[in-house]
Amino acid sequence: MAQGLRAAIDFLLYEWLQAQTLCSRARYADHTRETFDAVLDTCERIARDKYAPFNRLVDTEEPRFDGERVILPAATHEAWKAYAASGMLSAAQDYAVGGMQLPYTVEAAGNAFFAAASVSIGAGMLTVGNANLLMAHGTEAQQRAFALPEFAGRFSGTMCLSEPQAGSSLSDIATRAVPDGEGYEADPLGPRYRLRGNKMWISAGEHELTENIVHLVLAKIPGPDGRLPPGVKGISLFIVPKKLVTPDGQLCGQRNDVALAGLNHKCGWRGTTNTLLNFGEGRYPVSAPGLGAGLDGQGAGAIGYRVGEPGQGLRYMFHMMNEARIGVGMAATMLGMAGYLASLDYARTRLQGRPLGPHGKDPAQPPVRIIEHADVKRMLLAQKAYCEGALALELYCARLVDEQRTGEAATADDARLLLEVLTPIAKSWPSEWCLEANSLAIQVHGGYGYTRDFPVEQYWRDNRLNMIHEGTHGIQALDLLGRKVLMEDGRGTRLLGERIAATAERARAVPALAAHAEALAAAWDAVLAATRAAWADGDPVAALANAVPYMQAFGHTVLAWIWLDVALAAAARDGAAHAGRLQACRYFFHYELPKIEAWLRVVRTRDRTCADMAEEAF
Amino acid sequence: MAQGLRAAIDFLLYEWLQAQTLCSRARYADHTRETFDAVLDTCERIARDKYAPFNRLVDTEEPRFDGERVILPAATHEAWKAYAASGMLSAAQDYAVGGMQLPYTVEAAGNAFFAAASVSIGAGMLTVGNANLLMAHGTEAQQRAFALPEFAGRFSGTMCLSEPQAGSSLSDIATRAVPDGEGYEADPLGPRYRLRGNKMWISAGEHELTENIVHLVLAKIPGPDGRLPPGVKGISLFIVPKKLVTPDGQLCGQRNDVALAGLNHKCGWRGTTNTLLNFGEGRYPVSAPGLGAGLDGQGAGAIGYRVGEPGQGLRYMFHMMNEARIGVGMAATMLGMAGYLASLDYARTRLQGRPLGPHGKDPAQPPVRIIEHADVKRMLLAQKAYCEGALALELYCARLVDEQRTGEAATADDARLLLEVLTPIAKSWPSEWCLEANSLAIQVHGGYGYTRDFPVEQYWRDNRLNMIHEGTHGIQALDLLGRKVLMEDGRGTRLLGERIAATAERARAVPALAAHAEALAAAWDAVLAATRAAWADGDPVAALANAVPYMQAFGHTVLAWIWLDVALAAAARDGAAHAGRLQACRYFFHYELPKIEAWLRVVRTRDRTCADMAEEAF
Repeated sequence: MAQGLRAAIDFLLYEWLQAQTLCSRARYADHTRETFDAVLDTCERIARDKYAPFNRLVDTEEPRFDGERVILPAATHEAWKAYAASGMLSAAQDYAVGGMQLPYTVEAAGNAFFAAASVSIGAGMLTVGNANLLMAHGTEAQQRAFALPEFAGRFSGTMCLSEPQAGSSLSDIATRAVPDGEGYEADPLGPRYRLRGNKMWISAGEHELTENIVHLVLAKIPGPDGRLPPGVKGISLFIVPKKLVTPDGQLCGQRNDVALAGLNHKCGWRGTTNTLLNFGEGRYPVSAPGLGAGLDGQGAGAIGYRVGEPGQGLRYMFHMMNEARIGVGMAATMLGMAGYLASLDYARTRLQGRPLGPHGKDPAQPPVRIIEHADVKRMLLAQKAYCEGALALELYCARLVDEQRTGEAATADDARLLLEVLTPIAKSWPSEWCLEANSLAIQVHGGYGYTRDFPVEQYWRDNRLNMIHEGTHGIQALDLLGRKVLMEDGRGTRLLGERIAATAERARAVPALAAHAEALAAAWDAVLAATRAAWADGDPVAALANAVPYMQAFGHTVLAWIWLDVALAAAARDGAAHAGRLQACRYFFHYELPKIEAWLRVVRTRDRTCADMAEEAF
Repeated sequence: MAQGLRAAIDFLLYEWLQAQTLCSRARYADHTRETFDAVLDTCERIARDKYAPFNRLVDTEEPRFDGERVILPAATHEAWKAYAASGMLSAAQDYAVGGMQLPYTVEAAGNAFFAAASVSIGAGMLTVGNANLLMAHGTEAQQRAFALPEFAGRFSGTMCLSEPQAGSSLSDIATRAVPDGEGYEADPLGPRYRLRGNKMWISAGEHELTENIVHLVLAKIPGPDGRLPPGVKGISLFIVPKKLVTPDGQLCGQRNDVALAGLNHKCGWRGTTNTLLNFGEGRYPVSAPGLGAGLDGQGAGAIGYRVGEPGQGLRYMFHMMNEARIGVGMAATMLGMAGYLASLDYARTRLQGRPLGPHGKDPAQPPVRIIEHADVKRMLLAQKAYCEGALALELYCARLVDEQRTGEAATADDARLLLEVLTPIAKSWPSEWCLEANSLAIQVHGGYGYTRDFPVEQYWRDNRLNMIHEGTHGIQALDLLGRKVLMEDGRGTRLLGERIAATAERARAVPALAAHAEALAAAWDAVLAATRAAWADGDPVAALANAVPYMQAFGHTVLAWIWLDVALAAAARDGAAHAGRLQACRYFFHYELPKIEAWLRVVRTRDRTCADMAEEAF
């Protein structure tokens, strides 16, 4: 399996995205394609040796709480150790803090191997995102005490947004953060607060993989009247470590009042703990001698250190959430790839049936391998088109991150804005279509596909979470149609349109791709027309009533663009693999892109069928 | 939940299909709507008391083999007892054999409650289908010894088609049946054979729910050269009981040589054992004193009694498989309904977020129930359209079975042929779209949806089997485009077209439905045009290359017709529930039917993209 994945990544990274050209940038000047390859080799090897063999094990041996500790399989501990030892946790960091100064594009490509091998053993996504946020918005002291131990793999990180009564609706969070007495602002680790509240859906919220867990927690600081400020503008961000630390990131021997209230038992992604955490319920009262004056008594809350300014918490957190959304998109993509490659292997060896046609169906002839049946080919080609297309999109987005970080001012700003528009697609599209790919992988296996003797049903279960966590499909769709396509007077949409037009222009010159170029241009025009029609009178209720079908059409159009661009790179080269990419592109244009009309139709007509449905009529 | 299901069934059964008019037929003359209702009441009650409470239990406590017996939860035994006691196993049978002489339409409606409550505890589908087959093709002695104990719930039944090396490809089965010595034809239970072979994917293949298990087994009788005849024409059908019986259906104290070789561990439908069975491996050698002369030695095979003529096995089995396919379609539908009703309940109580619009999004306002959000309404209405539409289709097919059995000769023959055309849709459509409904039910729940604290993720896992068992999507599609739409010179297709046209004609007179009528007529024309284009030169390779997209378009068109016909019944009535049906119909025409163009396009153009994909290019 890993072979097919590596070949796909190598092609996209070097032949399509020309990632090696990043080495001409000052930040990456020490790198070459060889050093990039060495990183990919290491990731591939660790994923093969420490992740893949245990993917089923972590599904069947779910995390459990023994009353004191959360028990994970030994394999998960070994995998984490190997991952931390690889240096991938600080792959993108400066040499000065022990990092590799790798482009994010290469980091994302390397991490893909772990997601394909065992998404739920988990790699460093949340820990790295957490530490990155502190590098961007924390004080130097916070970075030293929390981020650096995370990059070293001694600590791990979480993001604590949702609450049981407030999933997607962050304005309703009720976790309270109260200044921790007089002089609370003088704590070397940042303004010190006491937090009380409950956080739901916290991945990796409790475990023994690391010395400590750094929770980044959204909470509200009550006003003078004791009431929490309404809305998202009242949200602040806090570092709440599981165990209290000294300013140089050593444990100071005292547990913070963060208590596991429950493990969520999921249909997939079962190797990762998913928790309900109680902050400040009093189970681990913090008297904290030596932590500073002004503690207002035992059990008065979990200690948290404010990051940045009050009321800016959501903005800081989005720094982490955008990376997390690309990470989720990549995870969904890799689950799809894993299923695709497993079903391809199966189809190449499983004997069954005979081809149709004049000499087929003769029972005296031996059965053929099922890859010779047209419908099996269709299911494999659909998977290839979904998953390799999604992989290209995720790497393209990663490349934009590098552009934003190291490009000239104007191109960096374009990259930032384009990334804003593409992020909802990078999150939502693979979570929908690579899940569909997993269903097709099951289907290729026939009855074997739904048994636990083959890996594909687990990929499918694991992948079902991706349309929900880190922002549901519905949330992504509101973000896209309600915010991203409009922002900066639609400049992001125009930027995307320019890139689409440029790809179409190049493709018009290639006879095999010219018809696709026309189809892409027409599809983009249809998306723009639907966007305008949806917002015709500026009423968000009417505009957003069909935001999800809009996002589906937008996503399919983006993927058609990505595939056509990939096909341009493939068309210039010889060999079966390149021919396969051209065929996958053709599949996408013939079988998939025409679906957008049905989705856009309801957007364009501002169809009210769903919105008008009376509750009592269900 | 059951309330919403009962209301849907009552409307479709009595107001749409006018099932009460069946009481004017001689066979059902003793029945009235009241006796039908009493059956539905009983089913609803048993399903509520004995099935629904244990649906999660049977998922977590999978069947296990203790070396001698397969252990199932006590709840499964209780549920089977209650089901058998209800009389539903012989619901459709003659009074003379203890049956209720119920229409199949009512039987199917009654069984729907069990599938919705716990599909994997299982009701009587296979047992009844097995016994029905014997009533149609077995001898009177076989009926007495095997079918009647099945109707009484003392025995249960299986269908044994697939083998490990031959799933969908029945022509390759290798189970051998050899005449059991001189005088083998004189056995009172039918010509006696010895069988050897392995059968895979046998549902309810081993358990202790009943005294005995009646396996109906496809096998081949070797020719004079000792070789098995090639192809499906060499297949015969045998009754192979787990335990040998006397001619009056009593156990004679000897086990037959049918051995459990393994339990399949599935991602869903886990309450039902699914087995690999070895016939005649010698684990339970049958010396069988008193069973007749001519036994050719211990361990020489499992004893089986031939049903009907040699070489006709597949034809007889299809008698059972068509019912099984409607049964699978109904099971898929009910899993969808269960998820729909669960997510509707959730959406009515869960508070989160605020509506869009000028007065919405104000954080000072309290959160609303999520059913007030347009996208949640969309997900609920899509589920309603998929599941209530599928339910209508399944009941319509059941109604055709009754017409075939009790109608005048000409209408009975029309019903038979129409059923042939609709069966692939009745099997495939709900297995695809009610699975999609289950995914939407998860989505409505947000993160809670993928936890095992809510029932929806199990419905989704259970439903994933339905696109595979009893004939995969690919097999159904070949059956539809390769056989059913062509059979009897296309008369079945014309019959369907006439019914579609009649519905459209009536709908043209109803202002709210007139536009749908035009859309339906156009869709059917497009399906016919694609059918002709696919078969333009009679080459099956070209015609069938896109058989699955064809079936998807055909299925959506059939469902649009069903919805329009249902809407005609709803439009004539007042009240919220009827308004809801009209809205679901509208949803189907606005959001779903337009999808057919993308599917038909590749059929019409005989697109070769998938068929031409070279294996090495994947």
